[in-house]
Amino acid sequence: MNNSAKSGSGLDSALAHLADVVDQRREAFKAGQIDPKTSYTALLFSKGDDGILKKIGEEATEAVMAAKDSRQSQLAAEQQKRLVGEMADLWFHCLIALSQFGLRPEDVIAELDRRLGTSGIEEKAARKATGQE
Amino acid sequence: MNNSAKSGSGLDSALAHLADVVDQRREAFKAGQIDPKTSYTALLFSKGDDGILKKIGEEATEAVMAAKDSRQSQLAAEQQKRLVGEMADLWFHCLIALSQFGLRPEDVIAELDRRLGTSGIEEKAARKATGQE
Amino acid sequence: MNNSAKSGSGLDSALAHLADVVDQRREAFKAGQIDPKTSYTALLFSKGDDGILKKIGEEATEAVMAAKDSRQSQLAAEQQKRLVGEMADLWFHCLIALSQFGLRPEDVIAELDRRLGTSGIEEKAARKATGQE
Amino acid sequence: MNNSAKSGSGLDSALAHLADVVDQRREAFKAGQIDPKTSYTALLFSKGDDGILKKIGEEATEAVMAAKDSRQSQLAAEQQKRLVGEMADLWFHCLIALSQFGLRPEDVIAELDRRLGTSGIEEKAARKATGQE
Repeated sequence: MNNSAKSGSGLDSALAHLADVVDQRREAFKAGQIDPKTSYTALLFSKGDDGILKKIGEEATEAVMAAKDSRQSQLAAEQQKRLVGEMADLWFHCLIALSQFGLRPEDVIAELDRRLGTSGIEEKAARKATGQE
Repeated sequence: MNNSAKSGSGLDSALAHLADVVDQRREAFKAGQIDPKTSYTALLFSKGDDGILKKIGEEATEAVMAAKDSRQSQLAAEQQKRLVGEMADLWFHCLIALSQFGLRPEDVIAELDRRLGTSGIEEKAARKATGQE
Repeated sequence: MNNSAKSGSGLDSALAHLADVVDQRREAFKAGQIDPKTSYTALLFSKGDDGILKKIGEEATEAVMAAKDSRQSQLAAEQQKRLVGEMADLWFHCLIALSQFGLRPEDVIAELDRRLGTSGIEEKAARKATGQE
Repeated sequence: MNNSAKSGSGLDSALAHLADVVDQRREAFKAGQIDPKTSYTALLFSKGDDGILKKIGEEATEAVMAAKDSRQSQLAAEQQKRLVGEMADLWFHCLIALSQFGLRPEDVIAELDRRLGTSGIEEKAARKATGQE
């Protein structure tokens, strides 16, 4: 969407930098400069939309399981670390998907910001709170 | 994990700010100051672990469907906007889950950064590239 | 796909009967004879493809969480019952999706049978076993 | 749960037979008689709970994507076949999970039947229909 915001904005610069690296690897993969056999990022892009998107379902499930395990351990350090790792896996595959669809994490953060600012998240509550299972 | 990094770090400050707001609402909900009937964030926290975590599975699926629709429309602006919105939903519910488990997005970003820096993401490739379906 | 096999085949007749009921309710909903306000099945069909499909992601996540809880309880009867209930939810929403797409559980069972018979499931192993994460 | 109902009941005998085969392979794997390198079923059991359960999240996502593609193709035969195949994958991994947790598809079907009979599915509507997103 908004590619002008690429990296170095100071705001969410770490996420933006990660997205830059992902975008660069995607370009390098498409130019035949990196090999799916040695780059996991290239491997994902070699699989196309469905191969990338199914990882979001898989990693979401793994994050949920890690959260269950962490609660079970009463948030023991080792399990919390694993939960962070699984959440990082989920977000990483989200970055891959965003790159695959020509989008940037800045777009997502801006949307989250917008909702928060305009109380959009809470607006949603008005719709949902009465009947959500 | 690392709560000392709360907000205002300049780095990923938008995400950190969002997490601050989520954490504040969680505290307010626990103190009985906001009502699940009027706040979606409070509603989520009122549901506990499983109610929060199942949303991650649901929102992941919705993001995947929006991506499929966007490709189908050849990344038409309207569909791209919807994809950004669904990804925002997924990340928002991840922020809720992190708060529920006493974690911060900074922890996740730091892990992503660490992997990138140490080529950890690519290390993973060595393990996976040969046989992943 | 194969609608000729509808119900009463003796083989998997319970599943087929369930699918018959789902199909009948879908027809009744489309004919305006049952109301989404009083029939959950009608409610699902009123939501269309995405509303039905996202439930598969949500219910899959709930089944996974119930399984984690059941293991944690060392497969205590109460938790096993909940796991069965969540798996039933997942399969029910699969039946709804099959009906929505004009398919039948018999089609799915036939495919499972075919794979088993021709060792198709094991064939898959040859592809996957060497490299799957 | 109820292992006495194993196979040959006439009712849902195909599913029951599939579950028998899965259970037998699980026993054979535990006895060291089949090898994860040559049997996909053995490979899954070798991964334990989380390795099995995450496949449910992944296969659910793949079934959802196949459904989206099928609709897009206006339910073309080839895409419908793929949807059936992905649903078969999802149900197969459900059978693996049930076996891993000492349960049987008959338990799930009985629960589905019970809900249908007692209008349990529709009861759920009363709770959900007013407010579900």
